[in-house]
Amino acid sequence: MADVPKRDLVSIDDLSTEEILELFHHAEEFRQNLHEWSDLCRGAIMATLFFEPSTRTRLSFESAMLRLGGGVISAADPQTTSSAKGESLADTVRVVGGSYADILVVRHPEDGAARVAARYARVPVINGGDGAHEHPTQTLCDLYTLWKEKGRLQGLEVVLCGDLRYSRTIHSFCYALARFGANIVTMPYPGFELPEYVLLRLKRDFGVQTATAAVDELPGIASGANTAAYLTAHKPHQLALFTNLTNVEVNRIDAIYMTRAQRERHEGQSTLDYPRLTRRTLGAAAAKDASIMHPLPRVDEIDYEVDDDPRSIYFRQAELGVPMRMALMAFLLGKVQLRASGPATQATGRGIAGGAGLRCRNERCITNGEGVRYLEREFRLRSQDHAAMLCCSYCERELEVRYVGHAQTRACHRFDSPGARAIKVQQRVYFENEAQAEAAGFTVSGE
Amino acid sequence: MADVPKRDLVSIDDLSTEEILELFHHAEEFRQNLHEWSDLCRGAIMATLFFEPSTRTRLSFESAMLRLGGGVISAADPQTTSSAKGESLADTVRVVGGSYADILVVRHPEDGAARVAARYARVPVINGGDGAHEHPTQTLCDLYTLWKEKGRLQGLEVVLCGDLRYSRTIHSFCYALARFGANIVTMPYPGFELPEYVLLRLKRDFGVQTATAAVDELPGIASGANTAAYLTAHKPHQLALFTNLTNVEVNRIDAIYMTRAQRERHEGQSTLDYPRLTRRTLGAAAAKDASIMHPLPRVDEIDYEVDDDPRSIYFRQAELGVPMRMALMAFLLGKVQLRASGPATQATGRGIAGGAGLRCRNERCITNGEGVRYLEREFRLRSQDHAAMLCCSYCERELEVRYVGHAQTRACHRFDSPGARAIKVQQRVYFENEAQAEAAGFTVSGE
Amino acid sequence: MADVPKRDLVSIDDLSTEEILELFHHAEEFRQNLHEWSDLCRGAIMATLFFEPSTRTRLSFESAMLRLGGGVISAADPQTTSSAKGESLADTVRVVGGSYADILVVRHPEDGAARVAARYARVPVINGGDGAHEHPTQTLCDLYTLWKEKGRLQGLEVVLCGDLRYSRTIHSFCYALARFGANIVTMPYPGFELPEYVLLRLKRDFGVQTATAAVDELPGIASGANTAAYLTAHKPHQLALFTNLTNVEVNRIDAIYMTRAQRERHEGQSTLDYPRLTRRTLGAAAAKDASIMHPLPRVDEIDYEVDDDPRSIYFRQAELGVPMRMALMAFLLGKVQLRASGPATQATGRGIAGGAGLRCRNERCITNGEGVRYLEREFRLRSQDHAAMLCCSYCERELEVRYVGHAQTRACHRFDSPGARAIKVQQRVYFENEAQAEAAGFTVSGE
Repeated sequence: MADVPKRDLVSIDDLSTEEILELFHHAEEFRQNLHEWSDLCRGAIMATLFFEPSTRTRLSFESAMLRLGGGVISAADPQTTSSAKGESLADTVRVVGGSYADILVVRHPEDGAARVAARYARVPVINGGDGAHEHPTQTLCDLYTLWKEKGRLQGLEVVLCGDLRYSRTIHSFCYALARFGANIVTMPYPGFELPEYVLLRLKRDFGVQTATAAVDELPGIASGANTAAYLTAHKPHQLALFTNLTNVEVNRIDAIYMTRAQRERHEGQSTLDYPRLTRRTLGAAAAKDASIMHPLPRVDEIDYEVDDDPRSIYFRQAELGVPMRMALMAFLLGKVQLRASGPATQATGRGIAGGAGLRCRNERCITNGEGVRYLEREFRLRSQDHAAMLCCSYCERELEVRYVGHAQTRACHRFDSPGARAIKVQQRVYFENEAQAEAAGFTVSGE
Repeated sequence: MADVPKRDLVSIDDLSTEEILELFHHAEEFRQNLHEWSDLCRGAIMATLFFEPSTRTRLSFESAMLRLGGGVISAADPQTTSSAKGESLADTVRVVGGSYADILVVRHPEDGAARVAARYARVPVINGGDGAHEHPTQTLCDLYTLWKEKGRLQGLEVVLCGDLRYSRTIHSFCYALARFGANIVTMPYPGFELPEYVLLRLKRDFGVQTATAAVDELPGIASGANTAAYLTAHKPHQLALFTNLTNVEVNRIDAIYMTRAQRERHEGQSTLDYPRLTRRTLGAAAAKDASIMHPLPRVDEIDYEVDDDPRSIYFRQAELGVPMRMALMAFLLGKVQLRASGPATQATGRGIAGGAGLRCRNERCITNGEGVRYLEREFRLRSQDHAAMLCCSYCERELEVRYVGHAQTRACHRFDSPGARAIKVQQRVYFENEAQAEAAGFTVSGE
Repeated sequence: MADVPKRDLVSIDDLSTEEILELFHHAEEFRQNLHEWSDLCRGAIMATLFFEPSTRTRLSFESAMLRLGGGVISAADPQTTSSAKGESLADTVRVVGGSYADILVVRHPEDGAARVAARYARVPVINGGDGAHEHPTQTLCDLYTLWKEKGRLQGLEVVLCGDLRYSRTIHSFCYALARFGANIVTMPYPGFELPEYVLLRLKRDFGVQTATAAVDELPGIASGANTAAYLTAHKPHQLALFTNLTNVEVNRIDAIYMTRAQRERHEGQSTLDYPRLTRRTLGAAAAKDASIMHPLPRVDEIDYEVDDDPRSIYFRQAELGVPMRMALMAFLLGKVQLRASGPATQATGRGIAGGAGLRCRNERCITNGEGVRYLEREFRLRSQDHAAMLCCSYCERELEVRYVGHAQTRACHRFDSPGARAIKVQQRVYFENEAQAEAAGFTVSGE
């Protein structure tokens, strides 16, 4: 393969905004004649390692690779994989990403698994969905579809509807919409709102402001009684300056993104009265120009009679997945060069070791799952103030640390105290609270 | 792909008799050097969507596509498919038959599923077996083997033996034999006779006459005590004119087609004393020139010691499946043109909507299964007399309607009454019986 | 495909020592640029028939075939194969090895299954692991890795550690090490020693002598208290002549081959205190130049912290599997010619029919499993003295026969008696003991 430094796509943040836009243009080229590229990656092999079922994602990747002229090997059944014999993900990707394959697509039930794969494999790794963490190629395809349909992303009004809690697709999509300057209207199924950590990150990383949204009646998915939220990136030239952001009126919607109830992630919770988009929804004035999107598979949250409406673009969305993934893989395999630079801060860099007491609070994080056997806990500093906000290097779940200890003296101080500031960075050991520090044998200063 | 109008192979009726014969000649070309065709379909992708297991059929298709130089993507495990998340077949084929693949092979447990797939997919669909409905490529391969072995199909004497009830292979094969003018001798395992609807269709569509067959002793599969049936197409130049068709003597058999007990379809029913073809069977005078066929997999209805007999052609039959499927796919992908015209009446045309009360009587029909959510019931008129014979547009199960109502006036009449005849075709609503009409709010005239 | 006589790789004995060394050189060529061979086997199709799960082996073969430019069809889930419908292995390989594929890789839970496949398939068959019998490509890869690392095999000191009882990998490796003149130090997990029949064969076929080994302390895997065995081929120019072989001191180890507990083969037996190779093991003087090998998947018998040690070559070992398998398949497909001759006695030749009473004593042998339906028991003569040692032609399990009967007279004699010697070879019927002979209706002479 070409001699380019290895790049992975674990999180959508692994690509810069400019790179993403450039990839859209390459995807357009691939799309225009899907059958003309069968020499581009001839000789390359993609392995799909799916530790959790997903036909659609797997087939989309496999089709993309075949259309590029490459070969495909696939381990898609968790029951027949080496992991059934107790093998770790790290070992699997070291073997398969050795001589077997030139690029890996990994899907795994544990949050952060894709980052583990990327670290251990010698070849590029694409995250095909890791637990509730991210599913970045779905996000790329969604953005590409919207960009192609509307000609831009900046300033679009995008309604997200349904299960916003357990859908990793939705979370990745939110960050990406904020990054490209689109506005988000959340219409969650009650009890399935966007998680707090997503909101926090939207605020911190993209300056997103939240307001109550007064949305026109959208039969089946929103009534006047519903309290929708409006999320908009806080930039000087945008409406934030001109509008009272306590209540935004949404009269014109550019896209409605429906999502199914992720039943496999919340067994036991009822989904009675789950929103259902019908012809009546499309009849609403606000939906006049709304593209209807869905990551598929659909269960019954969109009526079949809506399929023929020209605004329904969910099958088109799936269709665009192939050229988008062709562009991505051709790029990662060094067959397509981008002029744009990569992201400023690579999420792949090594972070702060977990040290004495820190542990990712996300119980579904791979560091609390199969990684316990071999992974060192690791965190990155996201922000600091009177406390520091760290995030797990794998699953990106955030963690507030309020105490800093000195690795040698084992004296421990509040984060914002002079004693803490006096500890050199290399000697710092972080703790969430006093109890944790004491359990690790540190003496907390009363300072 | 080439710009030909889309063709599907859901039922063997989707190909004209002339097209089938022409495909045999193409299959011969492919067969003569399997390894020389790897540029013909380069760039094309076939998806195998198998909602029910079948290694043999899947591998045969996949081999055929690879030998044509194309690529293969495969969803073969019902447990790991999107359907496990509740996705409909219609959605799956719209996605996979969008940009993912250029041709689909679908196997599904519900009768009529392949027609649904063909209607929703944008690309050609091949039926790889849909419930108890059809398995047309098996039929094509069987016919091709017999044609190649005997040099013709017309006038052959073909014995069908074993489970004739639940084997879709047998049903398709019967229609095809009748169509090509071969004669059928049925030797069912008692209780597993050809279903009545197969006999009815043979009679109506191909003028097949039934007689008792006096077959020479065939140890293991037929004794004088057995009552075999003889089915022959009623054509003026054939034996029907010359023979008393109440009892046909069969002294020379061209082929014996054995079939295994389809245990997965009739759990509970014992298959003790199931027929077993052995060397003794082959020793019978009537079997002297009989080719032994079997769709495979065999369980033990053919003895292993028969394998080496030159008349045993069941492994050859499997072998011919690859070039036959190459010919079919090259045709459907527009890489091979046929001079012959397609069938006169396309089974793909839209039929009579189900309307008020009609419902396919086949409980395993997809319109009574997963299709309930999104399919409109639909029927085609097969024949009419004092009643009309409709058949389900999906599973082709027939249904007799004896009443016709008027969509507006809601007055209902016997099918053969003047009142019925007065109703315009567009306003007709059909019912099987009075009760059904009344349940739908129609008033049945005493006329 | 090229017109070479069919060769299979069922047992490592199916290749001569010279052929193996020549294949190593071809593997080196493939390895040096994995991406340059995609025209060598273009048009060829490999089928992987895996009746028992194994991702690693399957993916390695599939990658090798794709890198050679061929295609792959795969039946990897025992639940969805025709065997679930009751099809025999013999039938499956006759179909798939007919027109579907040009080479087969078979993995099967029953001992001897690969030989059955090789006999029935028309195309070359590679054993991908058959029960506890053999896994010859793993052995080839292990030898290749060791040869590449150490520059030779002759005279190396190789420690085998862990479950030596149930690991077919270990058994094949032992025979091969003995054949190439390497010395073996066995350090089994107590209760999981090399089986007696492996030791017997090592002795008989390779003149291997056994001694107690005094091994330097190897923390985690061997202490002074452990009793290791030393196995060395008895050749005049070797240490056997110079050393008292009751106790060999092992101070320098060339390789430690760890193996996981084959839990799927010995459920119920505890593996507490299973050996665990750690940094401390590598710190031992005797391990200074020891390459650490493992067939993978690893569970936790090698610490993750050992991975980065340059002596750890287990991931390299997996990596070399692809070029090694490329060389093997290119050879079997006739695309690479070897100058060396094949093995003198082909294990594929027909042997002694089972006759009256003989039955393979290995309950997991395919002749006692699915083969009961269609296989004739068959044995080969391994040696003879006062009794004859036969081995099952399929699983190679040995069987001592002490009586010989006359097929016509049905008189039976002790094997080493004049009466026995008087019976012509073609008329001999073998029995393990008197009871067996009598049960078969023979009269045992008191001679």
